[in-house]
Amino acid sequence: MTAVAEPTTLPQTQGGNQQNYDVKDMALADKGKLRIEWAEAQMPVLRQIRARFAAEQPLKGIRVSACLHVTTETANLARTLKEGGADVVLCASNPLSTQDDVAASLVRDFGIPTYAIKGEDTDSYYRHIRAAIAHHPHVTMDDGADLVSSLLFISLNRLADVHPVVAEWASHLSEDERKAIHDEIIGGTEETTTGVIRLRAMEQDGVLSFPVVGVNESDTKHLFDNRYGTGQSTLDGLLRATNILLAGKKIVVAGYGWCGRGVASRAKGMGAHVTVTEIDPIRALEAIMDGFTVAPMHEAATNNDVFLTLTGDLHVLDEQHFNAMPDGAIIANSGHFNDEINIPALEKMAVSKRTVREFVEEYTLPDGRHIYLLGEGRLLNLAAAEGHPASVMDMSFANQSLAAEYIVASGKSLDKRVYVLPKELDSEIARLKLATMGIEIDTLTPAQQKYLTSWESGT
Amino acid sequence: MTAVAEPTTLPQTQGGNQQNYDVKDMALADKGKLRIEWAEAQMPVLRQIRARFAAEQPLKGIRVSACLHVTTETANLARTLKEGGADVVLCASNPLSTQDDVAASLVRDFGIPTYAIKGEDTDSYYRHIRAAIAHHPHVTMDDGADLVSSLLFISLNRLADVHPVVAEWASHLSEDERKAIHDEIIGGTEETTTGVIRLRAMEQDGVLSFPVVGVNESDTKHLFDNRYGTGQSTLDGLLRATNILLAGKKIVVAGYGWCGRGVASRAKGMGAHVTVTEIDPIRALEAIMDGFTVAPMHEAATNNDVFLTLTGDLHVLDEQHFNAMPDGAIIANSGHFNDEINIPALEKMAVSKRTVREFVEEYTLPDGRHIYLLGEGRLLNLAAAEGHPASVMDMSFANQSLAAEYIVASGKSLDKRVYVLPKELDSEIARLKLATMGIEIDTLTPAQQKYLTSWESGT
Amino acid sequence: MTAVAEPTTLPQTQGGNQQNYDVKDMALADKGKLRIEWAEAQMPVLRQIRARFAAEQPLKGIRVSACLHVTTETANLARTLKEGGADVVLCASNPLSTQDDVAASLVRDFGIPTYAIKGEDTDSYYRHIRAAIAHHPHVTMDDGADLVSSLLFISLNRLADVHPVVAEWASHLSEDERKAIHDEIIGGTEETTTGVIRLRAMEQDGVLSFPVVGVNESDTKHLFDNRYGTGQSTLDGLLRATNILLAGKKIVVAGYGWCGRGVASRAKGMGAHVTVTEIDPIRALEAIMDGFTVAPMHEAATNNDVFLTLTGDLHVLDEQHFNAMPDGAIIANSGHFNDEINIPALEKMAVSKRTVREFVEEYTLPDGRHIYLLGEGRLLNLAAAEGHPASVMDMSFANQSLAAEYIVASGKSLDKRVYVLPKELDSEIARLKLATMGIEIDTLTPAQQKYLTSWESGT
Amino acid sequence: MTAVAEPTTLPQTQGGNQQNYDVKDMALADKGKLRIEWAEAQMPVLRQIRARFAAEQPLKGIRVSACLHVTTETANLARTLKEGGADVVLCASNPLSTQDDVAASLVRDFGIPTYAIKGEDTDSYYRHIRAAIAHHPHVTMDDGADLVSSLLFISLNRLADVHPVVAEWASHLSEDERKAIHDEIIGGTEETTTGVIRLRAMEQDGVLSFPVVGVNESDTKHLFDNRYGTGQSTLDGLLRATNILLAGKKIVVAGYGWCGRGVASRAKGMGAHVTVTEIDPIRALEAIMDGFTVAPMHEAATNNDVFLTLTGDLHVLDEQHFNAMPDGAIIANSGHFNDEINIPALEKMAVSKRTVREFVEEYTLPDGRHIYLLGEGRLLNLAAAEGHPASVMDMSFANQSLAAEYIVASGKSLDKRVYVLPKELDSEIARLKLATMGIEIDTLTPAQQKYLTSWESGT
Repeated sequence: MTAVAEPTTLPQTQGGNQQNYDVKDMALADKGKLRIEWAEAQMPVLRQIRARFAAEQPLKGIRVSACLHVTTETANLARTLKEGGADVVLCASNPLSTQDDVAASLVRDFGIPTYAIKGEDTDSYYRHIRAAIAHHPHVTMDDGADLVSSLLFISLNRLADVHPVVAEWASHLSEDERKAIHDEIIGGTEETTTGVIRLRAMEQDGVLSFPVVGVNESDTKHLFDNRYGTGQSTLDGLLRATNILLAGKKIVVAGYGWCGRGVASRAKGMGAHVTVTEIDPIRALEAIMDGFTVAPMHEAATNNDVFLTLTGDLHVLDEQHFNAMPDGAIIANSGHFNDEINIPALEKMAVSKRTVREFVEEYTLPDGRHIYLLGEGRLLNLAAAEGHPASVMDMSFANQSLAAEYIVASGKSLDKRVYVLPKELDSEIARLKLATMGIEIDTLTPAQQKYLTSWESGT
Repeated sequence: MTAVAEPTTLPQTQGGNQQNYDVKDMALADKGKLRIEWAEAQMPVLRQIRARFAAEQPLKGIRVSACLHVTTETANLARTLKEGGADVVLCASNPLSTQDDVAASLVRDFGIPTYAIKGEDTDSYYRHIRAAIAHHPHVTMDDGADLVSSLLFISLNRLADVHPVVAEWASHLSEDERKAIHDEIIGGTEETTTGVIRLRAMEQDGVLSFPVVGVNESDTKHLFDNRYGTGQSTLDGLLRATNILLAGKKIVVAGYGWCGRGVASRAKGMGAHVTVTEIDPIRALEAIMDGFTVAPMHEAATNNDVFLTLTGDLHVLDEQHFNAMPDGAIIANSGHFNDEINIPALEKMAVSKRTVREFVEEYTLPDGRHIYLLGEGRLLNLAAAEGHPASVMDMSFANQSLAAEYIVASGKSLDKRVYVLPKELDSEIARLKLATMGIEIDTLTPAQQKYLTSWESGT
Repeated sequence: MTAVAEPTTLPQTQGGNQQNYDVKDMALADKGKLRIEWAEAQMPVLRQIRARFAAEQPLKGIRVSACLHVTTETANLARTLKEGGADVVLCASNPLSTQDDVAASLVRDFGIPTYAIKGEDTDSYYRHIRAAIAHHPHVTMDDGADLVSSLLFISLNRLADVHPVVAEWASHLSEDERKAIHDEIIGGTEETTTGVIRLRAMEQDGVLSFPVVGVNESDTKHLFDNRYGTGQSTLDGLLRATNILLAGKKIVVAGYGWCGRGVASRAKGMGAHVTVTEIDPIRALEAIMDGFTVAPMHEAATNNDVFLTLTGDLHVLDEQHFNAMPDGAIIANSGHFNDEINIPALEKMAVSKRTVREFVEEYTLPDGRHIYLLGEGRLLNLAAAEGHPASVMDMSFANQSLAAEYIVASGKSLDKRVYVLPKELDSEIARLKLATMGIEIDTLTPAQQKYLTSWESGT
Repeated sequence: MTAVAEPTTLPQTQGGNQQNYDVKDMALADKGKLRIEWAEAQMPVLRQIRARFAAEQPLKGIRVSACLHVTTETANLARTLKEGGADVVLCASNPLSTQDDVAASLVRDFGIPTYAIKGEDTDSYYRHIRAAIAHHPHVTMDDGADLVSSLLFISLNRLADVHPVVAEWASHLSEDERKAIHDEIIGGTEETTTGVIRLRAMEQDGVLSFPVVGVNESDTKHLFDNRYGTGQSTLDGLLRATNILLAGKKIVVAGYGWCGRGVASRAKGMGAHVTVTEIDPIRALEAIMDGFTVAPMHEAATNNDVFLTLTGDLHVLDEQHFNAMPDGAIIANSGHFNDEINIPALEKMAVSKRTVREFVEEYTLPDGRHIYLLGEGRLLNLAAAEGHPASVMDMSFANQSLAAEYIVASGKSLDKRVYVLPKELDSEIARLKLATMGIEIDTLTPAQQKYLTSWESGT
């Protein structure tokens, strides 16, 4: 990964970030701007919300720190928040997912301080999160809970548990200052399943100290973004990285959650032979009934061509599996963190390693077999492709926008736990989306409504 | 519908039903027995439960009144309950769904009093339910809540609301006797979505006076029975009734719940062009993203060939739709009740009506157009085909069996509301099923388990 | 199989067959008539041809002997020929495929002498073919070439090679009479791939002595009837015979011709896991790329649930495969002849055999395993279901009708070989079909037409 | 398009091209070499043929001029020919399809003179073809017949019909020299349907003066390359160019040939709603039965999102269609030539035009609607993606290799027409491919073989 220089201006501890940013190359802004507009054209729901936000200013005076994948769609979310009155700072939620042209345009064309460089090293990654913390957010936005967990470690005075770059900075703060940063937070939002799992664990451990809306829990988020978005963009990433033929290829999809079934069904739709691995017997049965082979990974590893992980869990592909894989196996991750593949184990096993195509690392094992790791094990769709298509992020980020509005509106009256966006808001987003597609649906007649709430009439 | 004579022996008010039954023709028992065994061969999970029940006798001394579709699979459920010690009486939950050979064999070969005749009229239908009530059940089993609602009307002294055949009988009971029937009930189980909707309405109205396990809420029930079972058997019923070519046919699926999406995906898999109608915007969007056309029914009615309703709601196909349909339109229902199609309206509109094939009624409208109603608007898969395949009912009825055991074991300690079977039992059923298929799945390593419950490690 | 009595009146050697027929039960005619009309409603192309034939009388005075599956669709073909002026006699082309109600109605309502009884034994089968021969046809219509081959054996004086029932009758004819029967033939038509393979072998051997139009070679026949018709109706037969759940089931499809790929794709569309067996490496590769598993039968036999043969070849399932199959394996044939499964070998291996459901024979092997043979190994879709849907036979029989017209019109000017229907007639049928569906397509502009025939302009 | 400078060394009129080439940047060779090896790993059939060629030298002393898409797969074909003894020169068959890194590596690492620069203008394009002609080929290889047609024009002394760059050069040759170039040609090969259509037209016009093997006619070419290769890579190109969500998108596929059905089926497999346009009524019916909507383009144009042309014909999308399309319509071509979309008409209609993303031109029409043209209307999969995956080109180029060997071996004994590769060679390629996938298939037993060639045994 690229080592990245210090940001030109150190982030201030409060407000006034207008001149601060850290992007790769401002010369990319022109291209970024066009691409942001291209995405905007496919985000009609977010456009409608932005128009309302501009008129109603529901986020007026609110500082928002957003730690998200810096893509064209996120750019449109950030614009929406800003037009709603918010003072937004944006940092990357993944070292490989940043689109550098977008970051440049956000800074230059939309005045949004952005800290994100594709391929940044871990130090830079956390220096950028530090900038988001130093913004003193009222509202946090996370994609994987890295921002919230850093914030909580600081407020819990557990500096040993945060990254040194953040710890060093926090060590200069007094306990009061640390508390102040924390106490200003009204609440947060979280984009992913993985993040929600972490937040629920925080809730369980009694350390979650403000409400967080798990945007992923909205039907209009996880039913669409995960299934159709990840489903398509994972295959898109696979094709861009490798240009292999999917027809006839034997592909393992680890995990049959919404993401996994999105990938499995699309891979099948392209002619691949798909094997699913699962730990949940009910999901495993569904996969079988949906026409997929189901096997444990130690078996699947022996006779497949491609392995894609979408589990949210650790080391789903591990040493024993690398040992079993045929020569030429391609492995990639499309779950949130790059922990799903045990890369350190692979590094240790390999006698040599080289880059054979962009995003393709070839590991040679002692017995001469080659294993090809894509995108360093990071989210394949963001590393090798462009992330989710805009029209699906339209709904996810409509959820983010309404969640931010909801957090601000409900003030500190909410409990310190993970919330789901109210069902009416969720349905409203779907309704807006259908309208933009020109699609009408049925409504219940009064007689039908009554029928559904009565139990008296039978056969 | 066939008018049916009185049962040979009137049901007694308590126990001793051994000689009582009402079936079409005992001579059919041989064929029924073979078919029950054919189904048994495909119900390995239920077989395992039956073996355990025989050893453990968890239902010893328990009277069970089951109002279910009398099919080969139900026969195997009834055998399971009986071997578990229960005293079982069975009546039909739908006038058209009974398999007469199975009913005969249940009586002759398995000693289970059965009241069910395919094509029985409404009087007979309720006379049969009356027999189930007169059995003084400890546990009720419903498929659409007709048994429970009749029981509740009696205990609430609302005899005007029950069918006259039941009311007349109940009128001879003292209030104490009515109360006694009711008070003996420990709880019930309910098989369908439609029944659960009715039970929830009862709960809402404060009249549900014992706990009921909504078996349909189990993942191993609704994810499989509704999607794969109804999905396949609805098309099976359509083909048996009409022998039309599905490839290239334009088919409307009303409702994109589990049943609807099962039918839609299979119809597509057979080459049909599927249009979905919905009232829920989120489901409508899913249907679009899954590749289906979505339209309101008043539009869909104008240019499609076949209309299948799976909504659980009233008059989804109504006069305005019949008016709009092209000549030759085929309409059928695969939801629980025959209310989804407004048949009285169609009868009123038609200038003539005749049966053109078994299960196909031709209605001629004043302008000369013909509409073909299948299976009298009753559950198409049960009317024209054989209901769900045994291997999917294996799981549904494993749920029923474990639900009955759970109701008995938890005694009267449960609240008076609709319950879901505990998640562990649900997963256990899936686990048993996978084992019978010889399929192994992954299990979490301790490290993975820990990872899923911690929040500390991030990017 | 049912032993069948002699026809009431012996077929005369020439013309005047009006009183002659052999059907099961004339009382079934009412039901048959309604079903013939039901099919007619879905055969708009054939209806249009019938109207033209009635006006133009292209078959005036022509005797047609048709040896076809006696189904509702064939009834409509026979009506079409008759209205075109032909004197038609119809016999069954398969002992199990006759619909007895249709046969009765053909005789009673449409005046077409029909010789066909479902479940007839081989003697009766050939007695019926004999009646078709005794009709002294100008035009033959075959489905498997049984009529033509019997005719040729007679004309070649190879009486030892025909069935004794035919041989005995022919032995009473003088050589001149045998020659006369043969010389009156203008030509024939053949419906199936299997029949065309036999006819090509006759051509190769120099014994084919009149032209035959291989209707199956028309695109509007084999691309539709085989793929969509057999594809659907094979699964329909499987479900009616067994009521098994297809989702998750492991199904072997032997043969990846048009029939096989029709079945494979629909089985997949219903959630089955499909393995294809092939002898052609190119087709095998296509199957893999289309997402199917490919294996040799000896491997596939060991771990699948259902085996369907559609190869047109001999003993595709043989002793070694029965030995390898798991307990409970279901085997069925959807190719033309019942030779694809080596039933004699299975009979010999089995220690016992019984009928467990209609169309399901259970064979118990010495080691206790059971194998279930459907429909006696005869065409599954005709034995257990209703054959192809009318709307696909609409095109096949439009081809038959136009082929008969073509044979008559081209007189004896054609060579003694297998012909394909001219491309324009083939396209015309498709054009008529599209028109009945209300579908418009593009036409070439003059500029486009020119472009396609020029080579001068390039990049 | 980039204007390109003259090649550093002018091509000589005979042999000795070793120092001649015209590529973009030799510094790209490292990357190109790795990518050529990546493709090689997925071309096991070609590798086996290369090994045999190296041993047998079937092309020893043969000059080959290949006008093909300069991709990683073509590089491996060129290596195969060279190792077989040929003296190969390679030029681009499309101005946009060249992979510049591959071109550089071909020159530097494999010693193959290559003339190809991505984005070259028409002059450069024909200057490169001129170099291929000047190589005095014994064997030509074409992808669209541009090389052969130029050659023929020269030999026919129709210099007015060739591009000026070629004409100018040819004008310096004597008639004898022109004749010599032509007479040295033993024969050619052609890769595409489009090229074969042109060659057939030449044959029709009596100007084709040497045999050409239409490689596209091989089953192992068109059944795979067109359907699975173009099918996948067209969608890959669409996603790389636009990053739109396919699920729920309304896509028109013009043409239901092998390419079109490959795209249609995969688009459906990704959740798109596909409408097919056709001029052939039989193909149109197939499309309907396969589950696609069929409409004429003037109707389809009004309500779809994306339009892909794969017809091999002219102006399939024309002014009337642009006038009807909704705002935001995306149009692209995946047929061979960029004539399928009438781009000049679009240019004329538009009030402005700009590049909004790489490979995406936005045309604004007078009424404010925008139409987005991808890849300048050139082959989308080559312009915006990487062309066909290597594993499918493996078979196409195995055909090319064996076709070249066949041409050389059969010498001048062949007629002057378009040939198909002998069926045995075609099957052999499939057999090799299956072997590399470790897949075994069935073989006919002697009894089965006999059965297929006999006609005596029937029902």
